[in-house]
Amino acid sequence: MTQSMDQEMDAPQKNGNGKARPYFELLAVEPGKTAATGVVGRARAGVLHTAHGPLPTPIYAPVGTQATVKALTPRQLREVGAHLVLANTYHLYLRPGDARIAALGGLHRFMAWDGPMLTDSGGFQVFSLAGGERGKSLRTIDDDGVTFRSHIDGSTHRFTPERVVEIQENLGADIAMVLDECAPPDDYEYNVKALGRTHAWAERCKAAHSREDQVLFGIVQGGVFPDLRARSASFLFDLDFPGYAIGGLSVGESKAQMLSTLDVTTPLLPEDRPRYLMGVGTPVDLVEGVARGIDIFDCVLPTRVARNGAALTRVERLNMRNARFADDPAPIDEACGCYACQHFSRAYIRHLIVAKEILAATLLSIHNLYTMLTLIREIREAILAGQFWEYRAAFWEARK
Amino acid sequence: MTQSMDQEMDAPQKNGNGKARPYFELLAVEPGKTAATGVVGRARAGVLHTAHGPLPTPIYAPVGTQATVKALTPRQLREVGAHLVLANTYHLYLRPGDARIAALGGLHRFMAWDGPMLTDSGGFQVFSLAGGERGKSLRTIDDDGVTFRSHIDGSTHRFTPERVVEIQENLGADIAMVLDECAPPDDYEYNVKALGRTHAWAERCKAAHSREDQVLFGIVQGGVFPDLRARSASFLFDLDFPGYAIGGLSVGESKAQMLSTLDVTTPLLPEDRPRYLMGVGTPVDLVEGVARGIDIFDCVLPTRVARNGAALTRVERLNMRNARFADDPAPIDEACGCYACQHFSRAYIRHLIVAKEILAATLLSIHNLYTMLTLIREIREAILAGQFWEYRAAFWEARK
Repeated sequence: MTQSMDQEMDAPQKNGNGKARPYFELLAVEPGKTAATGVVGRARAGVLHTAHGPLPTPIYAPVGTQATVKALTPRQLREVGAHLVLANTYHLYLRPGDARIAALGGLHRFMAWDGPMLTDSGGFQVFSLAGGERGKSLRTIDDDGVTFRSHIDGSTHRFTPERVVEIQENLGADIAMVLDECAPPDDYEYNVKALGRTHAWAERCKAAHSREDQVLFGIVQGGVFPDLRARSASFLFDLDFPGYAIGGLSVGESKAQMLSTLDVTTPLLPEDRPRYLMGVGTPVDLVEGVARGIDIFDCVLPTRVARNGAALTRVERLNMRNARFADDPAPIDEACGCYACQHFSRAYIRHLIVAKEILAATLLSIHNLYTMLTLIREIREAILAGQFWEYRAAFWEARK
Repeated sequence: MTQSMDQEMDAPQKNGNGKARPYFELLAVEPGKTAATGVVGRARAGVLHTAHGPLPTPIYAPVGTQATVKALTPRQLREVGAHLVLANTYHLYLRPGDARIAALGGLHRFMAWDGPMLTDSGGFQVFSLAGGERGKSLRTIDDDGVTFRSHIDGSTHRFTPERVVEIQENLGADIAMVLDECAPPDDYEYNVKALGRTHAWAERCKAAHSREDQVLFGIVQGGVFPDLRARSASFLFDLDFPGYAIGGLSVGESKAQMLSTLDVTTPLLPEDRPRYLMGVGTPVDLVEGVARGIDIFDCVLPTRVARNGAALTRVERLNMRNARFADDPAPIDEACGCYACQHFSRAYIRHLIVAKEILAATLLSIHNLYTMLTLIREIREAILAGQFWEYRAAFWEARK
C-alpha cells in the first residue's frame, strides 16, 4: 500500500546566514479507508529538513518546558532516541527571558540541544491562567492580544502576535507557532469568537515572522465542531503556512471527539506540509493520530507521570510505587531495551520512589520516553515498509 | 622521593566462590617531614584488589546513602571518574531491607554498580539519632549494642556487632566496617567509656565476619585525644584487620584538631594496610589527608552542596544561584573537563536552580564529583611520579 510521493520537492534554499531554509519531504503515504482499516486517513512518513539536521516524521517530541526535559541531560535524551524537543515560550519568556537566551546564543546553545527544536506560542499557557487568587482572572483578552499576570511573581505582561513571534525568533527554535486563542472545546459561541481572533492573529504572526532558518506553523482551532474546524483549516490553507498545527485538542473532550475532529481536519490541510497535533499524547494517540495523517506529536505525559512514579508500556500504565513490586527482580518491561530496563529491577525502581530519590524520576523518564520514541520509530518504519495498517492492527491486538 | 615498596605482597587468594580475597598493594610512598614539607606523614599510592576489580588509592568515594548517589545514574558516576561508592547500612537496613537486597542479588546488582563498594556499619547514623520528639532520645546504648527508633516510622530496632556484620554481608559490599561508638570529639570521659565498647565490638565483629570476598575494617576512635587515639590504634593493630578506618573526625572539631589527630594516629597503623578517613572531605582534606597517609576518603559534600546550588572548585565554593551568574556565558570552571562544564553556561545552571529543575542537581553533582575525583587522581599520579609534595605546594599556592 506504500505510495511513493512523486511530487516536486523544493531543493534546500540558503538564507542569509548560510543555513538551509527548513522544508518538508514526504517519503511514503499509506491511504486508509479500506474494509480492513475503516479509517479515513493517510499515514505518512517523511523528513522535515531543519537548520539543526533532518527530522524524521512521524515524530514525538519530549517537552522541555523550562529549557530542560525534566530530570534528563541532553545526552540521555539522545540515548532514548529523541530527535525533536519542545520548549515553552511562556515559561522561557518569563524566566530567564528570551532576550537573555538570545544574548547567550539562543535556546539550542543555552540548553545544549543541537537537534531540531520547536517552541509553542505561549498562548496555551496564558489562556490556562483563568483562575487567579480570590477568583480574579490572571489574564484578559482583547482583539489585539492578551494581558496576563506571571504565575511566578504576579507581574503584568502582554503578548501580541508580533511579540510572540519576536520572542520565538529570540529563542531560535527550528519550528515556531502563531499565537492562537484556546477556547473550551464544546462552547460553540466562544469558539466562533475565538476563531476570529485566531485567524487575524495568524495573519499578523505570518507578516511579522522574518527568521529564515525557522518555520512558522499556523494553528487550526474550532473546538469539536466540524464546521469551525473546516473553516479554520480552509482559512489557514490560504495563508500558505509551511506547516500546520492542530490545537485545542486533548483539553477535556473525549477521545472519540478528538479522533473525529482529526478525521474532518487533516483532509483539509495541504498534503505537502507537516501536521502537528499539539499536546498529544498516549501510545493510542500516536497510532490513531498517524492513521489520520499527523506527522508531529508532543506531550508532557511520559516525563510527568514518571515523576509521579508511573511507568508506561504500550499496553498499560504501571504504578511502580505499588508494594507488589517490592521484591520483583524483573525490569519494568521485559521487552524494553532502555537503560533503565537493561540495568534495574522493578524492586529497585520502587525503592527509589518510596525513598524519594531523584533517580526514580530520571530512570522512569528514560523508560517512558524510550517507550514512546520506540513506538513512533516503529510506526515510521511500518509506513516506509507499507505495513502501517498491519502494525496498527497488531498494536490493538496486544492491548486486548 | 618515591620509594618503591619492597615488601612481600600476598598473592590473590581464592575463596570458596572462586573470587579473589581482597588485598592491598602499596606501589609508592613519599615520606614527609623535610624542611620543605613540615608534615610528619607519608603520602601513599596503591591498589586495593577487590572482587569487583582493582581500586586505585588514594581514592575518594561518592556517597550513595540509599543505594543511589543522589541525582546520578551509575553510568554518570563512571563518567565522572568514580571507582568506589559508599552506601549506608543504617538506611538500607531500614529501607528496603538487607534481606531483600540479598534476595535480589546483593547491593551491587540492586543499584547496578559493578565496581568496588563500601558500606559503613550504620553506627554513625544511629548515634546521630540523639534527639527525638519531645526530647525523648531515639536510641539507647548498652555494652551489647544499641537500640534505636527508625527515623522513617518510629519502629524499634537493635544493632549488635554481630547483626551489623550480618547486614553488611547481606549487602555484600567489598569493604565493610565494624560497629563503633561515635562519641563527642572533645569529651574525654565519654571517649574513654565509648572506646571500651568500640574495642569490644571490634573483636566481636571480627569474630562474626565470614564472607571471604569482603574485607572488614577496624575503626580507630578516641576523639581529639592523642593518648586515646594511640590506645585505639594499638588495640586494633593487634587485632590484625585488613584495613583501618579513622572515625569520629569531621564531627565538629577544628580542622587543626583533625589534622593533628591524623598526625598522631596514622603512624601507629600498619604500613601495609589501607587507611580510610571516614566522612571527610573537602579539597583541602584530600591533600592534607593524603599527606598524613590516608588512602580512602568519602563524603556527601559534593552531592549535598550540589543540591543546594553550590559548585566546588579546588579553590572555592560558588553559590550558583547568585544573580551575578544570570548572564554569564562561561562554564562553572574554565579549567574543568566535566560534562557540565563542556556543555553548559553558568547562566543556564543558575536558571535551572532558580526554576527548581532537577537537572540543576544532576549537573552540579557531576561537576562537583568530577572536581573531587580529578583532584584525587592527580594526587595519586603525583605520588607515583614522586612529586606529591610539589603538587601539594602548588595546590596551596593556587588558593592564595
